[in-house]
Amino acid sequence: MPAERDLLHAPPEAVVVGPELFASALVAQGVPVRRIDWRPPEGAEGLASLWCDEVDAANRVALDRVLAAHQILVDVRPAIEVVPGMTRDTVLHAGPPIGWERMSGPMRGGIVGALIYEGLATAWEDAERLITRGAVRFDSCHHHAAVGPMAGATTASMPVLVVENRHAGNRAYSTLNEGLGKVLRYGAYAPDVIDRLRWFRDVVGPALGEAVRRTGGVDLRALIAQAVQMGDECHNRNRAASALLIKALAPEIAGLDLAAAERSRILAFAASNEHLFLNVGMAACKAAMDPAHGVPHSTLVTVMARNGTEFGIRVSGLGEQWFTGPAGTPQGLYFPGFGPGDANPDIGDSAITETAGLGGFAMGGAPAVVQFVGGTPADALAYTRLMYEITLAESTAYRLPTLDFRGTPTGIDVRLVVQTGILPQIDTGMAHREAGIGQVGAGLVKPPRVCFDRALEALVRARAGAGAGSGPR
Amino acid sequence: MPAERDLLHAPPEAVVVGPELFASALVAQGVPVRRIDWRPPEGAEGLASLWCDEVDAANRVALDRVLAAHQILVDVRPAIEVVPGMTRDTVLHAGPPIGWERMSGPMRGGIVGALIYEGLATAWEDAERLITRGAVRFDSCHHHAAVGPMAGATTASMPVLVVENRHAGNRAYSTLNEGLGKVLRYGAYAPDVIDRLRWFRDVVGPALGEAVRRTGGVDLRALIAQAVQMGDECHNRNRAASALLIKALAPEIAGLDLAAAERSRILAFAASNEHLFLNVGMAACKAAMDPAHGVPHSTLVTVMARNGTEFGIRVSGLGEQWFTGPAGTPQGLYFPGFGPGDANPDIGDSAITETAGLGGFAMGGAPAVVQFVGGTPADALAYTRLMYEITLAESTAYRLPTLDFRGTPTGIDVRLVVQTGILPQIDTGMAHREAGIGQVGAGLVKPPRVCFDRALEALVRARAGAGAGSGPR
Repeated sequence: MPAERDLLHAPPEAVVVGPELFASALVAQGVPVRRIDWRPPEGAEGLASLWCDEVDAANRVALDRVLAAHQILVDVRPAIEVVPGMTRDTVLHAGPPIGWERMSGPMRGGIVGALIYEGLATAWEDAERLITRGAVRFDSCHHHAAVGPMAGATTASMPVLVVENRHAGNRAYSTLNEGLGKVLRYGAYAPDVIDRLRWFRDVVGPALGEAVRRTGGVDLRALIAQAVQMGDECHNRNRAASALLIKALAPEIAGLDLAAAERSRILAFAASNEHLFLNVGMAACKAAMDPAHGVPHSTLVTVMARNGTEFGIRVSGLGEQWFTGPAGTPQGLYFPGFGPGDANPDIGDSAITETAGLGGFAMGGAPAVVQFVGGTPADALAYTRLMYEITLAESTAYRLPTLDFRGTPTGIDVRLVVQTGILPQIDTGMAHREAGIGQVGAGLVKPPRVCFDRALEALVRARAGAGAGSGPR
Repeated sequence: MPAERDLLHAPPEAVVVGPELFASALVAQGVPVRRIDWRPPEGAEGLASLWCDEVDAANRVALDRVLAAHQILVDVRPAIEVVPGMTRDTVLHAGPPIGWERMSGPMRGGIVGALIYEGLATAWEDAERLITRGAVRFDSCHHHAAVGPMAGATTASMPVLVVENRHAGNRAYSTLNEGLGKVLRYGAYAPDVIDRLRWFRDVVGPALGEAVRRTGGVDLRALIAQAVQMGDECHNRNRAASALLIKALAPEIAGLDLAAAERSRILAFAASNEHLFLNVGMAACKAAMDPAHGVPHSTLVTVMARNGTEFGIRVSGLGEQWFTGPAGTPQGLYFPGFGPGDANPDIGDSAITETAGLGGFAMGGAPAVVQFVGGTPADALAYTRLMYEITLAESTAYRLPTLDFRGTPTGIDVRLVVQTGILPQIDTGMAHREAGIGQVGAGLVKPPRVCFDRALEALVRARAGAGAGSGPR
């Protein structure tokens, strides 16, 4: 053990961690100093003011709402009929608000495809003209109780899943999953992509809606709980949940008054898509998180979302504000023929799964997901273990057999993220950075830390402005 | 550390492990002796003769056949049409051959129910008269390339799953799973049990057969591989495999020319049964093991099966012989209202899953199964790790994410079981010991060691008789 011998035989040495003032005072006295560059977290003083009973109590209120969520898939309807504020000229998109000029390739591709699908444009140039003359209303899905994976393009005639939170009474919405490869959400807009969306609108949506209504509602909390015990984390691995959803709906779909070939085609499409459940799960997570938003003083993160350019978060106690930073690029495994140069920065509302305690936070229960996103089962367990450091609770519904049935880490606390420097672990799909191509792989990514630093500043300002009721502990 | 102090300060002491000859010689010389009762395994000398190249080579041939098995579900047909040797007056049963007089309650119940279902008897007394006058031919399922869970009663008009092993060309058969609770296989024979079997015969069997034929065959090796990565061990946990099977067949069932209500009812029944896949998986395991049987000199176990009275094994190199011992009673979790006094001794052909590297051997990848059979996820991992000690290979198809995608322990070697004293770990259902009641719980059980000791003796005799080609190593 040479280090110990040095300790006994070498002359003592001063090590200064942080303040240069101390180091230079020692140097002035002729004492050799080893400097270690460290500073307390940005806004550490402000952070201290947030560790108080009032904030804790607010977080308990918000968290209890998340944990009590009981999500039921109750219907599938055209967006125009159910999504609040939806209009014929609206295109909802993933992530924080963004204008056309700053949108990434896959986001633009998804939006152009949606405009073509709606009959509002005939081709790219036509769509761009429409957009630049201000004839299209863009808005974040999240502003409409909706979530969309990747580009997240959601328009009036698209059928959306209607998920009701039976505990709080709110509803959340998401489009139907199109499968992998060349699909609208990854920025593809070729005729076959549009044709699939029209089949969704004319056949699949109405059929699913009827089937769901006949079941009286599919209990998604129970379904996700089961899927988590079957190795899904419900972001990048949805095999179990998709099969369980088919199991729940197949008896009703088989009984629909449709041509035999159409009944078969709907179920064959569903069976061919291992990510069928992704959008359902996202809507369930959105339905769980929305009631937790708007609790004064709460430091709970209620939204994490990306538009392909920026990563944005929203915090329960901070109203409608977004706290954004540049989106990172996922690291992971590429489909054959693609490599790191092809990947767009992080995109999509699917990080709502991590926000609600699934996805990267539940990877430890989904060891097989590493075959899709890279790493080893031990890494997956380590990610989940680490996420307990920045969350306030453990899910009472979603339990991990690989961790002796411990609940998944749930409820990201801005304070804990800033204090520990540990960022939320997201596992996600990767879109090609150019419009029109599609998915290129899947991997791991983290939000930029600046989102949390800015949210913390705003929380501190809000408390200072409000004249905090109880002092820091 | 008192033990170490004793070592230094106490006078030396002789410890004799085994031979009394040594111990008594020391005693005669006035030396104090601590005796430890230990004997080398029964037939240790014979065992040595089996560790030779010829046996190893035979086992490689047998194992290669197991590992190369490629099982496809190709049809569902009435047993009389496809099961070799089936006749109108035959009742096949689980486990080694047994006569009526020695059968346990649930075995008798299942057989009486089958006779009533076939219209050969009207009630218990009538069935018993028929049997005692010799009008019913009993035989083991295993003698007919078939496997039946629990009582395993299989008769002429029952629809059976037809599983083809595309590698070896053989086929294996099993009845349809009836769900949990009061079912024929657990010895219940009430009118609702019989009605369900008639619905199977008249509606479900023909519909499933047509659906399976339309798919062109369901790849069971791929399906089981997937299910194992989703936390099934395919004996007591079949949630993933059942959902995947529904996913595979639902598109075709939905397209069948049947009344809408009947299509729905078939799928609703399938969806309600988390053990839907059990019999399919058993037939797949039987289809994998049968080609490995009959390799001269091979010490590979090709069958483990229980009739509720005896546990029996068959060994590749030992032809049609069974090596039996008294069946143990599983230890585990009971359904509400039942307890240990209610459980029948171990029963059913479902231990074919363990024989083929699934079930208890794959528990380490199915941590959630402990909620059904008892214990902890760590126990489940330990069982799987232990089974590598008595198996000759690791599955190339079935890989466990929780063990870094290691293949399941596959191919029980009689030599290794006798040498290590480690018995195969089986996790299984528990039937009520009286006829007519049904399942009472699920748990863990092991074969009696005597099966393996007897098989070893037979292997040694066979080699001695044949004049072994190569000496022991």
